[in-house]
Amino acid sequence: MALSRLNTFTTKSSLFRQLPQNAKCLSNLILGEPSGPSVKTPIPGPKSKEMISELNTIQFANTVIYFTDYNKSIGNYIVDVDGNVLLDVYTQISSLPLGYNHPDLLKVLQDPDNQRTFINRPSLGLFPGQGWPQKLTSSLLSVAPKGHSQVTTMACGSCSNENAFKAAFMWYRNKQRGGAPITEEENTSCMMNVAPGSTPFTIMSFKGGFHGRTIGVLSTTHSKAIHKLDIPALDWPIASFPRYKYPLEEFAEENKAEDRKCLAEVEEEFERFNKSGRYVAGVVIEPVQAEGGDNHASPEFFQELQRITKKVPVFWFCSKNCNCRFNSVPFFLKKKKQNGAALIIDEVQTGGGATGKYWCHEHFHLPEPADFVTFSKKMLTGGYYSLPEFRPQQGYRIFNTWMGEPSKVLLLDKVIEVIKRDNLLSIVQASGKKLMDGLMDMSKRYPQHVKNVRGIGTFCAFDSSSAEKRDEIVAKLKEKGIQSGGCGDLSLRIRPALVFQPYHADIFLEKFEKVLKKIKTV
Amino acid sequence: MALSRLNTFTTKSSLFRQLPQNAKCLSNLILGEPSGPSVKTPIPGPKSKEMISELNTIQFANTVIYFTDYNKSIGNYIVDVDGNVLLDVYTQISSLPLGYNHPDLLKVLQDPDNQRTFINRPSLGLFPGQGWPQKLTSSLLSVAPKGHSQVTTMACGSCSNENAFKAAFMWYRNKQRGGAPITEEENTSCMMNVAPGSTPFTIMSFKGGFHGRTIGVLSTTHSKAIHKLDIPALDWPIASFPRYKYPLEEFAEENKAEDRKCLAEVEEEFERFNKSGRYVAGVVIEPVQAEGGDNHASPEFFQELQRITKKVPVFWFCSKNCNCRFNSVPFFLKKKKQNGAALIIDEVQTGGGATGKYWCHEHFHLPEPADFVTFSKKMLTGGYYSLPEFRPQQGYRIFNTWMGEPSKVLLLDKVIEVIKRDNLLSIVQASGKKLMDGLMDMSKRYPQHVKNVRGIGTFCAFDSSSAEKRDEIVAKLKEKGIQSGGCGDLSLRIRPALVFQPYHADIFLEKFEKVLKKIKTV
Repeated sequence: MALSRLNTFTTKSSLFRQLPQNAKCLSNLILGEPSGPSVKTPIPGPKSKEMISELNTIQFANTVIYFTDYNKSIGNYIVDVDGNVLLDVYTQISSLPLGYNHPDLLKVLQDPDNQRTFINRPSLGLFPGQGWPQKLTSSLLSVAPKGHSQVTTMACGSCSNENAFKAAFMWYRNKQRGGAPITEEENTSCMMNVAPGSTPFTIMSFKGGFHGRTIGVLSTTHSKAIHKLDIPALDWPIASFPRYKYPLEEFAEENKAEDRKCLAEVEEEFERFNKSGRYVAGVVIEPVQAEGGDNHASPEFFQELQRITKKVPVFWFCSKNCNCRFNSVPFFLKKKKQNGAALIIDEVQTGGGATGKYWCHEHFHLPEPADFVTFSKKMLTGGYYSLPEFRPQQGYRIFNTWMGEPSKVLLLDKVIEVIKRDNLLSIVQASGKKLMDGLMDMSKRYPQHVKNVRGIGTFCAFDSSSAEKRDEIVAKLKEKGIQSGGCGDLSLRIRPALVFQPYHADIFLEKFEKVLKKIKTV
Repeated sequence: MALSRLNTFTTKSSLFRQLPQNAKCLSNLILGEPSGPSVKTPIPGPKSKEMISELNTIQFANTVIYFTDYNKSIGNYIVDVDGNVLLDVYTQISSLPLGYNHPDLLKVLQDPDNQRTFINRPSLGLFPGQGWPQKLTSSLLSVAPKGHSQVTTMACGSCSNENAFKAAFMWYRNKQRGGAPITEEENTSCMMNVAPGSTPFTIMSFKGGFHGRTIGVLSTTHSKAIHKLDIPALDWPIASFPRYKYPLEEFAEENKAEDRKCLAEVEEEFERFNKSGRYVAGVVIEPVQAEGGDNHASPEFFQELQRITKKVPVFWFCSKNCNCRFNSVPFFLKKKKQNGAALIIDEVQTGGGATGKYWCHEHFHLPEPADFVTFSKKMLTGGYYSLPEFRPQQGYRIFNTWMGEPSKVLLLDKVIEVIKRDNLLSIVQASGKKLMDGLMDMSKRYPQHVKNVRGIGTFCAFDSSSAEKRDEIVAKLKEKGIQSGGCGDLSLRIRPALVFQPYHADIFLEKFEKVLKKIKTV
């Protein structure tokens, strides 16, 4: 299977191991990986069903797809408790960089010194362990987006975005203070959630975006109603994210107009909110809106967005003794103009290599580094890169008990070493090309089911004709031994690990076509 | 040292090991634990200082106390990179249940099957691993507060509280809907952060409380201004938490009046917010306000608070076709009365055994189980227990990529086994008595520096005369080899691990008295 592609990727890298003489399947390049999926039972199978019932007595368990045997899962293959073996192109919602049970990660765990890292979780803001700066340097900073030298670790994606927002608010207020000290009134009022200590600042987000589920970032999430329903939300600015027509080359003009329309909205929202005193301290955006349906926007859109965030004029009345909303003491007017809001690029799902670069926004060639780049998922640790001007000015402002976890960075360190050693970003590019070529081909041959094919690296997706058809395709793929996932209203997203090779793409495409042949048109 | 106390706690438990024949210090009961602290350099020492500078090039590092050698730290002793050995009664902001490098936890890491749990992090809401319900049962559910059978795991304390709030909002809105289905208008409006889909609901919190640092829970945190300054906040109800006069027996009447005053405020806030349509869906409270200064309240206060949350009358206009703020379709009035808001007990710092029970609120003998009990820190995993009526009605509402982490529950499982096997809760009670007796004694002999001694189990604190004096005591304790921590404006909190034994309390008290003798009075 796909043997003709083998040579292209046969390098000296240790990913490609010599096969045992008695290997039955020659396409097995990761030691122990099966040659392909095998499905024995309906999914979920009887054992999974029983376990789902058990779990359901303890917590809501109706979202569980199946129970997994993590001892048997290997590489790109997830094995369920009923013995079904599936090629996993969803990888725990895009969060496994090297697939299952990668031997190099197992070795990290087998080292007795490392084992202690997993049981002595420090409060990193107070008592970091020996070697921590070096570990940050060899892992996170070694793959930092260009221009970034500062990194802060957190536990998860939501927390990373929440703290990036907080750092942006502090930075914005500091600019507004213009060097004036923090007042007693600010200190006392913030304790009761009111001005001037609590600010009326806002973060702009985009329709279709997803930035997490805690209440602050949930206010910037606009992907699916079920995530937000019944939860109080902050009334912050929301602009439109481009929705392109495909194929891109055919609709170049329409899509450019779409960019302009969305950017105009951004400027309008800036003006509307800044004029009302609800200053926009930051703009948060994903390089590709993943959860919201794999919505892509052009490099030009992102470049122009950055220009807008940097140039946006803000007028405020502010001095130690002004009468602005932050200070009610004697009248002393000082009109100031300062530019700019923070650009927060959320790479929680796009980061870590799946687009063929460590960071998806590197494809956009932004004129300047983004102010914040947040991450989690494939990076194993949450956190964010930020420019030096966003460092907190006082202690305990960007802080929590754990501030991430050294054991995650220890694993990430090895992941990055393997990515570099095994040239996994090149493999992602090659596998991505194969996936995209295959999907484009399908979209021509099955245009009723495969529309709007789009992708960068292996970060690919297409639209089906309806949510129901999409769900049917996901379900039928599972029957054929492919674990995929939906996103947005009618998209199917492909999110393999970085060890997904071109021949895995062949397996996927072969099964996919079998499914497409069986799907009825409307 | 403290050998006379030894027999009381010499049981057959494996915590108490046979000392090697050549053991130099007889007080060493945990294998490898030193006999006492030893300080060689100023703290931070030269190596720590160098590392702090290094870290400071990467991130704000001015909060770091010293760099720690986690390979050498053992039991109750933290060892820094300069070789200083400190008795740790702060334990990574109260988050280490069994101290450093507990041999039973190391064994968990050495088991090859367990090692895989640390490198295959699942999306627990979709693909839990084999044995996950059993693991939840043997760990979290085996120590669940009475009446609780439901548990949801999360990554950290903030996230646990955020999700408890969300579950409370959904429950409240469901009650308000009275069985009516979710409308299309709700689904579309919530995507833009507006009513009726986004609710105007609120969570009541208490002055001095701490419930985390993400923007939702930060709105319920009122411990220190620096945590909240410049961050937008939700204008939610805030009531006063009792502030008692000590000694309690002397001020019984005043303190009862304080309870009544605070409870009256709770009722007033309920009325004020419910009348304005900003319904109070939940009340969040710590059994002891830890970060805010170790503020205790009586069992009667908590009992009455629960009665209020259960009885609070709520009138609303609601039906499928009413004209309430949630629905603007034709006029059809239906006045409903329903009782109750959710009581969310935040045991992030108090939970896990330090009070001599698994859950501090078990000391209060509440008439009914709390609606939510949230946890993190010593429980290693975040999460919450909740009554069955708070289960989400649909999937993906209480959800995120990881939903906690099996490796944390694996470690917790062992921690709980050790707590039970070694009777650690009895040891906490005994050590707590020793600590409290000692602190009370100090408060009589050094009344200018040790005031308002209070505690449950080893969860103890006292006030100093000022923030400066408190900081001076913390600093001088460190010079004597004791790592403690401040809280609130002028309190010092003691937060040892569960393996802190009465003779450790003796060591602490001996060093503490030496410090007190040196502190000048104003």
